[in-house]
Amino acid sequence: MDASLEEKPDLLVDILNAIELEDFVDIAEKLDQEHQSDIATLLQSIPQKSRLDIWTDILPDRKGLVLVEMNEDAAKALLEETSADDLIIGLSELDADEQAYLLSITPDETVPQVLTSMDQQQRALLEQSLSYPEDQAGRIMDTDFLTVRPQVTADAVLRFLRRHDEIPEHTDLIMVVDVRYKLIGVLPIRTLLVAQPSTIVFDIMDDEYAVVSDIDALDDVAKLIEGHDLISVPVINEENKLVGRITVDDIVDHIKESADKKLMSLAGLDEDDDLFEPVRPSVLSRLPWLAINLCSALISATVISQFSPTLEQIVALAILMPVVASMGGIAGSQTMTLAIRGIALGHLQNSNAKLLINKELAVGMANGLMWSIIIGIISYLWFNQIKLGIVIAAAIFINMTIAGLAGSIIPLMLNRFNIDPALAAPMFLTTVTDVIGFLTFLGLATAFLLT
Amino acid sequence: MDASLEEKPDLLVDILNAIELEDFVDIAEKLDQEHQSDIATLLQSIPQKSRLDIWTDILPDRKGLVLVEMNEDAAKALLEETSADDLIIGLSELDADEQAYLLSITPDETVPQVLTSMDQQQRALLEQSLSYPEDQAGRIMDTDFLTVRPQVTADAVLRFLRRHDEIPEHTDLIMVVDVRYKLIGVLPIRTLLVAQPSTIVFDIMDDEYAVVSDIDALDDVAKLIEGHDLISVPVINEENKLVGRITVDDIVDHIKESADKKLMSLAGLDEDDDLFEPVRPSVLSRLPWLAINLCSALISATVISQFSPTLEQIVALAILMPVVASMGGIAGSQTMTLAIRGIALGHLQNSNAKLLINKELAVGMANGLMWSIIIGIISYLWFNQIKLGIVIAAAIFINMTIAGLAGSIIPLMLNRFNIDPALAAPMFLTTVTDVIGFLTFLGLATAFLLT
Repeated sequence: MDASLEEKPDLLVDILNAIELEDFVDIAEKLDQEHQSDIATLLQSIPQKSRLDIWTDILPDRKGLVLVEMNEDAAKALLEETSADDLIIGLSELDADEQAYLLSITPDETVPQVLTSMDQQQRALLEQSLSYPEDQAGRIMDTDFLTVRPQVTADAVLRFLRRHDEIPEHTDLIMVVDVRYKLIGVLPIRTLLVAQPSTIVFDIMDDEYAVVSDIDALDDVAKLIEGHDLISVPVINEENKLVGRITVDDIVDHIKESADKKLMSLAGLDEDDDLFEPVRPSVLSRLPWLAINLCSALISATVISQFSPTLEQIVALAILMPVVASMGGIAGSQTMTLAIRGIALGHLQNSNAKLLINKELAVGMANGLMWSIIIGIISYLWFNQIKLGIVIAAAIFINMTIAGLAGSIIPLMLNRFNIDPALAAPMFLTTVTDVIGFLTFLGLATAFLLT
Repeated sequence: MDASLEEKPDLLVDILNAIELEDFVDIAEKLDQEHQSDIATLLQSIPQKSRLDIWTDILPDRKGLVLVEMNEDAAKALLEETSADDLIIGLSELDADEQAYLLSITPDETVPQVLTSMDQQQRALLEQSLSYPEDQAGRIMDTDFLTVRPQVTADAVLRFLRRHDEIPEHTDLIMVVDVRYKLIGVLPIRTLLVAQPSTIVFDIMDDEYAVVSDIDALDDVAKLIEGHDLISVPVINEENKLVGRITVDDIVDHIKESADKKLMSLAGLDEDDDLFEPVRPSVLSRLPWLAINLCSALISATVISQFSPTLEQIVALAILMPVVASMGGIAGSQTMTLAIRGIALGHLQNSNAKLLINKELAVGMANGLMWSIIIGIISYLWFNQIKLGIVIAAAIFINMTIAGLAGSIIPLMLNRFNIDPALAAPMFLTTVTDVIGFLTFLGLATAFLLT
């Protein structure tokens, strides 16, 4: 049995030992018995430098299969060390959409040589794939699928199939087309298999079936395939002609990548960042987010500095002000995460945005009320000043209420301007909750606590 | 064509209008033409109260299909308003694993009546499914699949299939078993379709194929199906007997739910939380995280309070201290996100943990050095005190270095103790970076700036 789920932790340990001893003789042989996705995982579990040592010993016909399973940054680094000859062999094992992806991250000097090696049909398929933007259905569609005419019999279809050496992977349906290649139905294999031999395809084909257009957004195709539990869906162009199909395995990858992107974006990271990237690119990739945070923190500092005279008189304010800011920050980020998820799942749109904002305003006020009482009492007990307790309670209430509003409005606004909310919302939100927190707390203190 | 990707925003607008006018006559009829996943999405896009108004008009045989597509909290609320009779009809459209899930969230008083309505075989399947923990393969496996013996011919298999009214959905392979129901191979449909009629199954079956055990972790099954681009994988028990199969559609749902869970956990939310949950449960579900944050913030406040005399003398410290804490917080959360993702993807394990910690220590120091210079200069220019610039630079360097360590070590430690890092790491990390930030900045200031 090829792939059972017995743990293979030993292989990673072996490789780590080999790296330490700089002895790679056995490793390549062992890797050769692994599935390409496992090789990709192993390579991504070791430092980039060591990957290159192993990479040279991996057989060229597997290199393409391994590369498409890796993070973009990790794949890029290995492509720089892959000869054009190896790459040509590696690409020959891939679909047009995977070839297009790898060539898009291949060093410029290698690409012409690779393109020259391809035959005309291959190049045409590749160019067709590259003609679509990355987030459209056409970019990842397969062009190998089976078609039949509606007037033939089930038996004729079976005989037609038997003339093939191989049927395309993930084929769960045969496309039924007319003479102009217009899609008029689909014949599921499971229908074909139970059909009487003399039945006409037209009589057993599905004429109610899912279909997408080549320019549909991949996110929408993913929702369709996921919601309808499909294996494959035909793709038509604007003239209603059949041009390809999208299969669930590509959609699984898309769903994983989208989720990954959202997670990384929320921390200001790029989804192509690699766990064992060298230090210098790591520092550079984290720079923008830290720079934005510095701006946000300096805005907060400026707000605080306006209240220097108050802080000089009442040092308790300096002690408590992080509490006000952080409670608003957490409350806001909870609302924001809910909104970002709602947008991604299609539950939150412009038409029902007001409903969410109203609800989050109510939740923010309820939370604000509850926590302002708790924190007000704690502060009173700590500093034994009733007025300080009231001031911090008021500031907490105001900040948590505004956090609920900002946490719902900021992602919605960004989405309306077609900016990915996961990428930009966290910093906007932090700035709002920090500034409002410091401003209300120190402002109220200046108004009511100074003697 | 049933499902094309033309936008249907009008339906949500129609429903929102109907809710406002409390007029639901047309809505049920319109919904009836939609796919169950679209109905689930629409219901989750409106407030919970309004869902109940629409729910009564949805046909009982679709209720089960819709419920399994919804968030757990949202489904629970609707199940409370679903009669046992409707639920019995709804469940009859579902697989055993889906029935098990819905019954696990059905109100206790309804369950006995539903169970009584089932025949013995149905109940046995349901009990088998419920006997596995939620995160094991057995819980979501299908028990309807096709089996053949190895010694029959391809033609005999085709004739055997033709005797079925229907072939189970997502059937891409036929299991080849011996007399004891031990799995000895799989016959892909795509092989069967091109085989010569007289060929023996044994000669064309795959004997190198993916297989999982019924007690394997679902996460591992998902990685296998995703990495190997499978449609289905056979499930065997500890006696090597075939007990079921897992299909890619269930894995797609699992992958989406896992990603969703990670996103929500990072904000201290439950993945079953519902966008339009009423205010009271929303407040309760967000309480633990806010309470933990309050503890963390009070620890920080206690640290700050130790330096009251220093703060009284130098108010600039109160102004700048959020900068030190927040730079460490962001640097730490970037490392933490990378580590959490690495653990989830299988790139980060105990054996290579040290490599990551070393790298993140180096990145933290490099980042710390760069940002300490920038922030030191800004602070010097702002307050015109060279010593203040040096003190904040040193504090930033120390805090960002420790943030790199904590950001990698905390998720790794939690994972080793089998605690989900996404759930617990953020708060631990915030506490560390806040405390270290305030402690080093105010501590160094007390040592070097007081006159």
